Amino acid sequence: MRAIAKAIGLSAACAALTATATYAQQDRWYPSQWGADDQRGAANRITPEKVLEIKDLITSGRIYQLGRVYEAGMPLFGTRHFSLRIPQAFGPSGANEFLYFDEVVSGELGQIGTQFDGLGHAGIGNVFYNGNRTEDFVRAEGLTRLGIENVGPIVTRGVLIDVAGYKGVERLDGGYEITAADLEGALRRQGTEIRPGDVVLLHTGWGSLWMQDNQRYLGSSPGLGVAGAQFLVEREIVMVGADNWGIDVSPGADASVAAPVHQLLLTRNGIYQFENLVTEELARDRVYEFAFFFSPLPLKGATGSPGNPIAIR
Amino acid sequence: MRAIAKAIGLSAACAALTATATYAQQDRWYPSQWGADDQRGAANRITPEKVLEIKDLITSGRIYQLGRVYEAGMPLFGTRHFSLRIPQAFGPSGANEFLYFDEVVSGELGQIGTQFDGLGHAGIGNVFYNGNRTEDFVRAEGLTRLGIENVGPIVTRGVLIDVAGYKGVERLDGGYEITAADLEGALRRQGTEIRPGDVVLLHTGWGSLWMQDNQRYLGSSPGLGVAGAQFLVEREIVMVGADNWGIDVSPGADASVAAPVHQLLLTRNGIYQFENLVTEELARDRVYEFAFFFSPLPLKGATGSPGNPIAIR
Amino acid sequence: MRAIAKAIGLSAACAALTATATYAQQDRWYPSQWGADDQRGAANRITPEKVLEIKDLITSGRIYQLGRVYEAGMPLFGTRHFSLRIPQAFGPSGANEFLYFDEVVSGELGQIGTQFDGLGHAGIGNVFYNGNRTEDFVRAEGLTRLGIENVGPIVTRGVLIDVAGYKGVERLDGGYEITAADLEGALRRQGTEIRPGDVVLLHTGWGSLWMQDNQRYLGSSPGLGVAGAQFLVEREIVMVGADNWGIDVSPGADASVAAPVHQLLLTRNGIYQFENLVTEELARDRVYEFAFFFSPLPLKGATGSPGNPIAIR
Amino acid sequence: MRAIAKAIGLSAACAALTATATYAQQDRWYPSQWGADDQRGAANRITPEKVLEIKDLITSGRIYQLGRVYEAGMPLFGTRHFSLRIPQAFGPSGANEFLYFDEVVSGELGQIGTQFDGLGHAGIGNVFYNGNRTEDFVRAEGLTRLGIENVGPIVTRGVLIDVAGYKGVERLDGGYEITAADLEGALRRQGTEIRPGDVVLLHTGWGSLWMQDNQRYLGSSPGLGVAGAQFLVEREIVMVGADNWGIDVSPGADASVAAPVHQLLLTRNGIYQFENLVTEELARDRVYEFAFFFSPLPLKGATGSPGNPIAIR
Repeated sequence: MRAIAKAIGLSAACAALTATATYAQQDRWYPSQWGADDQRGAANRITPEKVLEIKDLITSGRIYQLGRVYEAGMPLFGTRHFSLRIPQAFGPSGANEFLYFDEVVSGELGQIGTQFDGLGHAGIGNVFYNGNRTEDFVRAEGLTRLGIENVGPIVTRGVLIDVAGYKGVERLDGGYEITAADLEGALRRQGTEIRPGDVVLLHTGWGSLWMQDNQRYLGSSPGLGVAGAQFLVEREIVMVGADNWGIDVSPGADASVAAPVHQLLLTRNGIYQFENLVTEELARDRVYEFAFFFSPLPLKGATGSPGNPIAIR
Repeated sequence: MRAIAKAIGLSAACAALTATATYAQQDRWYPSQWGADDQRGAANRITPEKVLEIKDLITSGRIYQLGRVYEAGMPLFGTRHFSLRIPQAFGPSGANEFLYFDEVVSGELGQIGTQFDGLGHAGIGNVFYNGNRTEDFVRAEGLTRLGIENVGPIVTRGVLIDVAGYKGVERLDGGYEITAADLEGALRRQGTEIRPGDVVLLHTGWGSLWMQDNQRYLGSSPGLGVAGAQFLVEREIVMVGADNWGIDVSPGADASVAAPVHQLLLTRNGIYQFENLVTEELARDRVYEFAFFFSPLPLKGATGSPGNPIAIR
Repeated sequence: MRAIAKAIGLSAACAALTATATYAQQDRWYPSQWGADDQRGAANRITPEKVLEIKDLITSGRIYQLGRVYEAGMPLFGTRHFSLRIPQAFGPSGANEFLYFDEVVSGELGQIGTQFDGLGHAGIGNVFYNGNRTEDFVRAEGLTRLGIENVGPIVTRGVLIDVAGYKGVERLDGGYEITAADLEGALRRQGTEIRPGDVVLLHTGWGSLWMQDNQRYLGSSPGLGVAGAQFLVEREIVMVGADNWGIDVSPGADASVAAPVHQLLLTRNGIYQFENLVTEELARDRVYEFAFFFSPLPLKGATGSPGNPIAIR
Repeated sequence: MRAIAKAIGLSAACAALTATATYAQQDRWYPSQWGADDQRGAANRITPEKVLEIKDLITSGRIYQLGRVYEAGMPLFGTRHFSLRIPQAFGPSGANEFLYFDEVVSGELGQIGTQFDGLGHAGIGNVFYNGNRTEDFVRAEGLTRLGIENVGPIVTRGVLIDVAGYKGVERLDGGYEITAADLEGALRRQGTEIRPGDVVLLHTGWGSLWMQDNQRYLGSSPGLGVAGAQFLVEREIVMVGADNWGIDVSPGADASVAAPVHQLLLTRNGIYQFENLVTEELARDRVYEFAFFFSPLPLKGATGSPGNPIAIR
């Protein structure tokens, strides 16, 4: 993999992503290193050996919840929605007066609130991870390939990169691009290393705007640039998470391209994304290494998953 | 807690639950042992010390997925529904032809498919866990108390009780009541003990009917009876899960009561339930002890959560 | 009916509605004049003879659409929602390449956008039209009585009362209460009379804010006061519609009561309401009498109906 | 129009529809006779003059409801769904104890239950009415052209053709193709003529299976064949309705083509369809001519509309 990553090369990737639309699909990123039929991408890096790494990371038994509550009034991208209602009671039934409630929920689950992006979420034109083409796998009733049910649980070593802390601010500015140098600098400051199969979370401080100033939260935000993302790709990780809405910096350096980090991570490298995370407590407690757990909701044929991932140290 | 459980007493509880409707709320089960304001019930048993127990349970790094895929055609109780659709693509945008998909989902999430019952799900008449009354906490826009967002992650020792194996069958019969003696016998056969703070999963074999014969799956099923449930309550566990649709045996021994195990576990004791689990692989591999992980989807004010809990050994 | 209306009396009704909560259910409004089992209320006034009245009202064949388009961005009350998505295509199938689309919609249909309030929508405490009690007819899966499917088509003479025009303004102010004197004055100015079985639409001018200033639209608005509503009740009409979100003036004259016009019309008198109508064109063209058509969407057990009622002259 | 219809010709149309996929788009059906920008198709035939025709058709004031109730358990095509739930009460508020209910609904509204097919529903490959191409007008958030909100009210002369009665049966057999000769024969028997701008309803008797035998209802059904549909096209009508689920006979005479009547009516000729109607009472009462009213629910960008159309005589 590292060989492949180097073959593409950082500068070449950047050049590619600022090139014309015609270019976009020129360099073939498939078949994937996990075979032409693979649907799991970097989740393949979660081996039993990797799972065993978590044992030494759990030292105090303290759990950090990294997910947001799904609720009315949370920031929603575009015209997506979230609705939850409690219907009338069912019952009471029987001499024991059994009575129960449920809830009816609707929304773009998988792409609202804290959201885990699967490999069927983002493509380069009509081509997705491992060369899957829209016309071949995207159906009204669900994706027939790359659905979120293929991912499986992600249990691995997690690393927090406190980029805001490295830059000496509470919150990075909207539009601030996190560079490879930032990542390297922050990791050095923390004394943390990234290993293959890790999950990497970025703390930008942007999350403090969640439900405080939704309009601003959803606007320009700090995030990864292509070079920073390439730095992570080369480290053979499983997933990148952040406390912003899109992982990508917004707006990006090049106004002619849209969400290039999505394409670099998801489409080209099968590396997952987790958006709208809560990283504040990890940063505050300087928890830079931890056991990470997330088990995607297996909605058949979905592009993503909601969830409440956790960190344990 | 054990003292309280004994004070209620097994025979008294059974008598109570077969008594008239007037009786149902006579013996007060509140305030809870965790205080009159508690909303988490047995999740309070998940302490950092308990979390640390999982370290020794993880020996091979193998992960078992215990959740079902959410899909069209799965068994659904009553008139509940599940719908997932992939809308038209968004994009392509930019010179890099960024294109993406999401999904629109609706359903009684929290009470369809693999489902985790929260403390706002089941009551005795209008009274729920810790004495919360319907009129005080159940609102159209979500429960104002006992919502699933209060539970927090459940990371603890898990125990599988292979009741089907103990009875020497592939699948227990519909209507078969799992008794305290069955649980004791099966645990003895396995050489497993239950400890406070554990999660207990029951393998009945009923899960093999899932999407094979939905009508039968949703009909009479093997499950826990009140005495069996009381046996588990006294062991101060956090949650009971099973490969059937309702934990309770259906129909129960006494036709005049409905789902008494729900009330004993959820309402009276704050012990959670997880329904429609996949326990087959654990039973086949004789994995009777394992690290258990589940992080409920924090749908604000919901009665339950969907999910894909995992076991690691 | 007129006798009953007089027996209650205008001043008594006003006194009642400003009295204490204890009072609210004191004067029994049931059984209804259409019998103790009636579920249709004032829709009973749509007789074949009344339907025949429309023949003379149709003179030019011109149709006015009175409903709003249901769309993202329309004003929504509270946390109600509306979502529409076009899924991926189905097909193409066959040598003829048959391909089709549908849409998945969710929302509080019946109570969003242009909305027709049924008799199960509003009550005085737990008592509704004709003495139906919440516990007897309101169920999770739909109302078992008073559902919108009982109403049937409303085809009758329609009358527009241009209150804004009568007051010499484009748009009445937020909080302006339309009085009985306003209605009488406006009718006199127009030379229009109200007859039993009619539908009455009020033009307040408030509709011009729709999707222009949603926040203002949903705030304080002009509307009917109790005395104005009583004036209409005594005229034995079928329905009141308006170009505001709630028929009732908001806020009302008495801050201690909420939506008293809803209760007077729907609960006590079985008279329907139609909110968020488009009355602008009728007012502009001085169409004060017309044939009115509306056929509620028969959503079984619903409290209301969306729709696009029409006026023909 | 008649000239155009003849130019295509019945035999040619049939030949076309049984030809290879390559053929399907060969004969251009656009621009439409109502101009290259038209989005309303045959609804353009609803002129004020046509509306005035209804006056003489209304003789008794009797209303027939032609729509089905939308409810759990109704026949649903494929994996479409319909869900309605009544949430918890809002209120009581104020001294007057104002309390209200609404409903949360989800489903493929526009394509479930009684459903009116708009011009964005069916295409020949990626080309729809008036040459609109999928890539140009079909978006996740709704159709940008041909949406149901463009249709406008359909108020016109309605004609029932009692095909079952003509064939002397209560219910035509599944798979029975209604031919042009059947239509002519039934019209002659009734003494009814079709005029330009009419709505035509077909009574097949199939509707008696609705909610009696849903599986059979949704299977093979009697319906229009291409030649019968062409007969109606040539009469310049606005809409064809029927008491079956698809207007088209199912299965059709040629197994290699799918729903050719949909394409002939909607795509090529801009003539609307109304499925799952109730025609039984009209047939029983021999109401062959009537005033027809339907006002599509203006769901912005939808492919169809639910509704309860009515006939008045």
